[in-house]
This record gives sequence, C-alpha cells and structure tokens, in this order.
Amino acid sequence: MDRSWLSAAEEALLLVPGPTPVPGRVLRAQARAMMNHRAPAFRKLLRAVTDGLQWCFGTASDPLILTASGTGGLEAALVNTLSPGDRVLAVISGAFGQRFADIAAAYGAVVDRLEVPWGQAADVAAVAERLDGSQQAVLCTLNETSTGVVNPVQQIAALCRERGPLCLVDAISGLMATPLEVDAWGVDVAVAGSQKAFMIPPGLCFVTMSDRAWQAQRTATMPRFYFDLAAAAKTLAKGENPWTPAVSLVYALFDALEVIEDEGPAAMLARHARLRDGVRAGLRSLGLRLLAADDVASPAVTAVFPPDGLPADELRKHLRERYRCELAGGQGPLKGALMRVGHLGYVQEPAILQGVALLAQALADHGRPVDAAAALQAAREAMSG
Amino acid sequence: MDRSWLSAAEEALLLVPGPTPVPGRVLRAQARAMMNHRAPAFRKLLRAVTDGLQWCFGTASDPLILTASGTGGLEAALVNTLSPGDRVLAVISGAFGQRFADIAAAYGAVVDRLEVPWGQAADVAAVAERLDGSQQAVLCTLNETSTGVVNPVQQIAALCRERGPLCLVDAISGLMATPLEVDAWGVDVAVAGSQKAFMIPPGLCFVTMSDRAWQAQRTATMPRFYFDLAAAAKTLAKGENPWTPAVSLVYALFDALEVIEDEGPAAMLARHARLRDGVRAGLRSLGLRLLAADDVASPAVTAVFPPDGLPADELRKHLRERYRCELAGGQGPLKGALMRVGHLGYVQEPAILQGVALLAQALADHGRPVDAAAALQAAREAMSG
Repeated sequence: MDRSWLSAAEEALLLVPGPTPVPGRVLRAQARAMMNHRAPAFRKLLRAVTDGLQWCFGTASDPLILTASGTGGLEAALVNTLSPGDRVLAVISGAFGQRFADIAAAYGAVVDRLEVPWGQAADVAAVAERLDGSQQAVLCTLNETSTGVVNPVQQIAALCRERGPLCLVDAISGLMATPLEVDAWGVDVAVAGSQKAFMIPPGLCFVTMSDRAWQAQRTATMPRFYFDLAAAAKTLAKGENPWTPAVSLVYALFDALEVIEDEGPAAMLARHARLRDGVRAGLRSLGLRLLAADDVASPAVTAVFPPDGLPADELRKHLRERYRCELAGGQGPLKGALMRVGHLGYVQEPAILQGVALLAQALADHGRPVDAAAALQAAREAMSG
Repeated sequence: MDRSWLSAAEEALLLVPGPTPVPGRVLRAQARAMMNHRAPAFRKLLRAVTDGLQWCFGTASDPLILTASGTGGLEAALVNTLSPGDRVLAVISGAFGQRFADIAAAYGAVVDRLEVPWGQAADVAAVAERLDGSQQAVLCTLNETSTGVVNPVQQIAALCRERGPLCLVDAISGLMATPLEVDAWGVDVAVAGSQKAFMIPPGLCFVTMSDRAWQAQRTATMPRFYFDLAAAAKTLAKGENPWTPAVSLVYALFDALEVIEDEGPAAMLARHARLRDGVRAGLRSLGLRLLAADDVASPAVTAVFPPDGLPADELRKHLRERYRCELAGGQGPLKGALMRVGHLGYVQEPAILQGVALLAQALADHGRPVDAAAALQAAREAMSG
C-alpha cells in the first residue's frame, strides 16, 4: 500500500484554522503508555489540567473536559441550560453561529435569529433591540471561524447580565487567541476546543459553567446523557470523568498547558495579534482583498478573496499539490469564493512569511505577477510593529 | 512540579478492561503532525480505516467513526433509531447494560428492563418471553465489562429479526475479543470503542447501521446533532467527518488496523480466549473464586473475588502501590466486592503470567500463603491448551 500521501500531508505548511500545528513535545506526549483512568495518577493529571484550564478561561470554576470536538461542547452548553420550548436569541455572523442556532433548534428551542452580514461583527445595539424579555439565553460566537471576525462578547455578556438571559459563548477557535475573561465578563457558558489556540490535536473540548448556568442546569429538561455536565462535575470532584476520557489527548493537554504557561497568556494574545497583522499586510501587498475590516479582524484566521478570475479552490489546490501548503476554503455562502488562512495555535512568524511567499509564487504561476519581496517585507514589518 | 507519578503510571502493568495496552507503533502514530481534515490525504486515511473497520465488524456497510468514548456511541445508536415514547426491551446483565437502558430513558424511551443476575448471561428464552410486539428495539451487551460475561447476541439478533424489533448491540468491549458478525447475524446497530480490543487509546467509537436501522433513522425523532449518523454518513461519502475528528486517534486507528491485520481476526479471537483461560486457571490455582461460569466467561475481562477477609480494593491498592500493577474494581452492587482483570487489546501471555505472579505475591504479603509456581504453571498450561 502506498503511504506517501501520509508523509506528504505531515510535511505540509498547515495554515488552516484547526487542526492547528502542534508542538513536537505535545505530539510526543500522546505516545505515553495508557494509564488506568480510575486511579490516583489520572486524578493528579486531571486536577493539573483542570487547574491550567481555569487560568486559560479566566475562571475560578472548574472547566469540564469532554471527549468530543467543539460541536459536542456547543451541544453540551445548550442541553444543560435549556428546555424544549425555551426561546433563545442566536447572534449569527457566520457558519459557526448558524451551527450553534441549529443545535438549539434540533433540541426544541425556539430560536430568534439575529443575522449579521458575513464578514461583519455583531452590533450590540441590535442584540439589545432583539432582547424582549422572552429569551432564556443569547448564543454568540467569540471568533467566527468562517469569516475571521471577532464579536463583542464582553458587551453582549454585560447586556445579558443586565437584561437576564444566560450568555452562551462559542469560544472554540477564539480562546487564547483573542481575549476572553469568563468570570470578569460574566459569561455563563464558554466552550473551547483543543485543536485551536490550545495547540493540541482535536478530540477534546472544554466547557465552563457559571453559578447561573448551574442553576439553570437543575431545571433544564433538554435530554442529555453523554454531555450531562452534572455527571462531569460530580465525577470531577473524585478526580475522574464519567466516561472513559481520551487519555492520550489529556496527556497532550498537560504538556500543552506547560507550553502555554511558558509563553504566558498576554504574550500569546500579542503573538496572535501580530500574526494577524502580518498576514493581512502580506495579503494586501499581494493585491488581495480581505473579507473583514481591520477593527474586527480575527487574530486566529483571515478570510481573503482570490484575484478576479482565479477560483479560490483552484489556487488552494495548486498550493497544496505544488507547494504542500494547506489553506482552508470558504464555508456556506462563501464556499468557493474565498480562502481562509489560519494563524493560530503553535504558529510563529516564519510560518507566516513562508505562507506569504508560497502564495506569491502560486499567484505568479497563474500569471499574476506579484512583488513577493514587497509582500514579505510588508508582513515582516507588520509583525515587528 | 513533581511528575514521578506520571512516569510510574506509564510503567504499570495495565490489566484493566480499558484503556488497554497500546502497541508502541500505534502510540507513536499519534505523534504524526496534524493534517487538514478537509483535504485529500485525510480522505484517503478515512477511507482506509473505514474499510478496515468493515472487516472488523463483519459488515459490507461503512462503520461510522465518532469522536467520543463508547457511551457516546451508545447514545448515537439510540437517538438515531428511536422516538420519545418508543418502547424498548433492555437486556441488563451489569453496569453497561444498565447504562444503555438509562440513556434510552433519558431520551424518552419507555424501557422494559429484563434484569439478569450479575455474573450470568442473558437467557434467550426470557428475552423471547418479554417481547410482546410493542417494543421497537432490543438493547443488549455483547461483553458485559462489569461482570466479565458474554451474552448470546447471535441468538438475540436472530430473535429480533424473527419478531421485528431492531437489535442494538453494545459491542464496545467485545468486538475483536469475542465473535461478532454484524451482517451475518443481522445486528442492526453495533457500537465498538477504540480503547478495547482495537488497542488504540480512548476517544473514538465506531457504529454500524443496517438497512433497517437507516430506515428507522428517517422517522426517529429523538433529538440529535453531534451524534447525527445521517450527517456522518453524508460527509463520509465525501471522505470527511461532519465535525473535526480526533485526527491523532485516526492515525492510531490506521496503524492499529495494520497490527490487527497482521495478527488476523481468527488468531486475535483465539488469543483472547487463550488469555481468558490462562487468567482463570491462574486465579483458581491461587484459590480465588470467579464470578462468571466457564461457559459464559468473557475473553476480555475476568471478575474475581478476593479471599475472605481481604477487601478487594485494599488488595488492588497494594498491587498498585507496591507492584505497579493495575486491576479494575467492581462496579454498581459489586463495588468493593471484587476485582476485574482486563486481558484484552495488546496483551500477550507474558503479561498474564506477570499479573498472576504479582497477585500471588500480594496475597502472600497479606498472610495468604499461595503456591505461586503452581499458579504460574496452571496459567501457562491453560494458555498452551
């Protein structure tokens, strides 16, 4: 059996918004031998990573670790706080805002959809206007991965505290790349994913619950079992998970939290902002148009249009096949219309310069002569900034 | 920070029924760099492992891979085939049969519980008697991990085909350790887990769906989103998962399937049966009483009582702390009453002899003089058998 495709994929320059590049020591941490997940060593491990997650989310509560990708965490956020028939306001600024709303609807919530044009951030005044006292919760997305836009979650959370509904936040691709202070902002439920800024492979998600959220949990009647957070909290008190956890990913989390601690949260946020500025400057220098405006641009992912007449997916295919560089495509109505450059997780400045260089060459290959040197210089300067 | 506990746990002789020991090459396969899960290389990977799983389950349909532990797979089996108010017959012979029933109840099924004494296998005549035409499905457990008993799933599946209800099988700890032929037996939904005989770390589960199960899926109204198998099947046709999959565990699955193919399924089943016989002979030679009778004894796990007057958990603690040997404890009504010796996954004869030797010494340490040589010889002979 030919396995060259596997080696080739491993060597690719991975500039997608998840899975993100993982530090070597975190990759290797997964190779530790298995341990009994109902024994003292695992209890120590679970306590250590839970403490680390508290610090990442900015909460004094224990974030719960679920074996699932982020979508499972969104489901957990909803089914633990709501009952069928409850009305929620979903702030939808892209594919992931839509998904959050769709999960709520699948479980019987009545969903008011506040549609924000893709590429723009939600307007807090518009959210306030749609809140009429009937909604039990507001669903919002910290970093909308499909458009590369950061939403004003701090203001939405404050509004929720003032007006009553719970504030449920999809922070899957946002946490650690863009600010989020769960306790200080009064966020009721926040969901993050392992394969984003946490720089771990996919398969775990993390969910925080405020006191208000736990109160809602006690009367919420949406059906739940695997994602029952009361079961997760109860077993966590004994140092366990209710179901067998993804042990090798918990090993990875343990090491990743040390990498995160070594860099420091402020430096991590600053790095992501710098990478964003570098990507945007480089792409603009190549004559490409960006979807999001500067003031709402995501430090995690940048959506960019190809030049006129050159399909985005053709350019991506060329980058993959000729240069082993992976960019993500558009989603939903933007499918085929643009490319998304991920710059989160274990990504450093050289990767951004490499990506700009390969994209410049790919454009040249398609008869779009570009000034690669100028683009590199622009990216370099924006990142030194 | 002291991390000696982590190294110590890694070196333990792991004789629990999951997570099971993982071959070194499979552990290391997880350390491959991440790849884009929406790109051709991942499509090849997903196709290859899905083909391998077909062969493991004995089905021409595509098993679906979910990022979740086995309990999530049980939830998927139920919410995709049933509607609230549907009546099901749950054949309960231990903690995992109970769990399957509890999930069904959590999602609004009306659950008829056929309780089988813990340590015994279900009686097919009793199942037949409880089927009254009102049940949409029968829930059963291939290998009941809490008691170490194999249930007559082939006969229960045949009964279901004859009488109408769907046959939903928890094969999480059973598949590849004890026979299961999904298509030939007419099993409608079978669920397996990665951390059992598949010898991969936990975090993935695998679910098969028969044509009858898909037919039920189209009208089943239990709410579902993350575990929606129609979404999983639809994206699999494009070589993708609906949500970001646990990429490093899929790498592990790819390598594990090669290890499984190298050994061969018949040899794998024979090895597990041999290990069971060795464990049982060794434990009996040490004067210990086994929970399950020989004719229903699990090739995956053996439940064994401690000698009178010596608490099971004290003996387990001594084995862990003094000899770095991990056995599992009892569950439910058997909590504290017995120990469970796992012998599935990447376990070979030497590990069984090591376990017998350490247990013999632990008994001696507690003033129970035993003939270790005789026990080793008994285990050795049973495994040569």
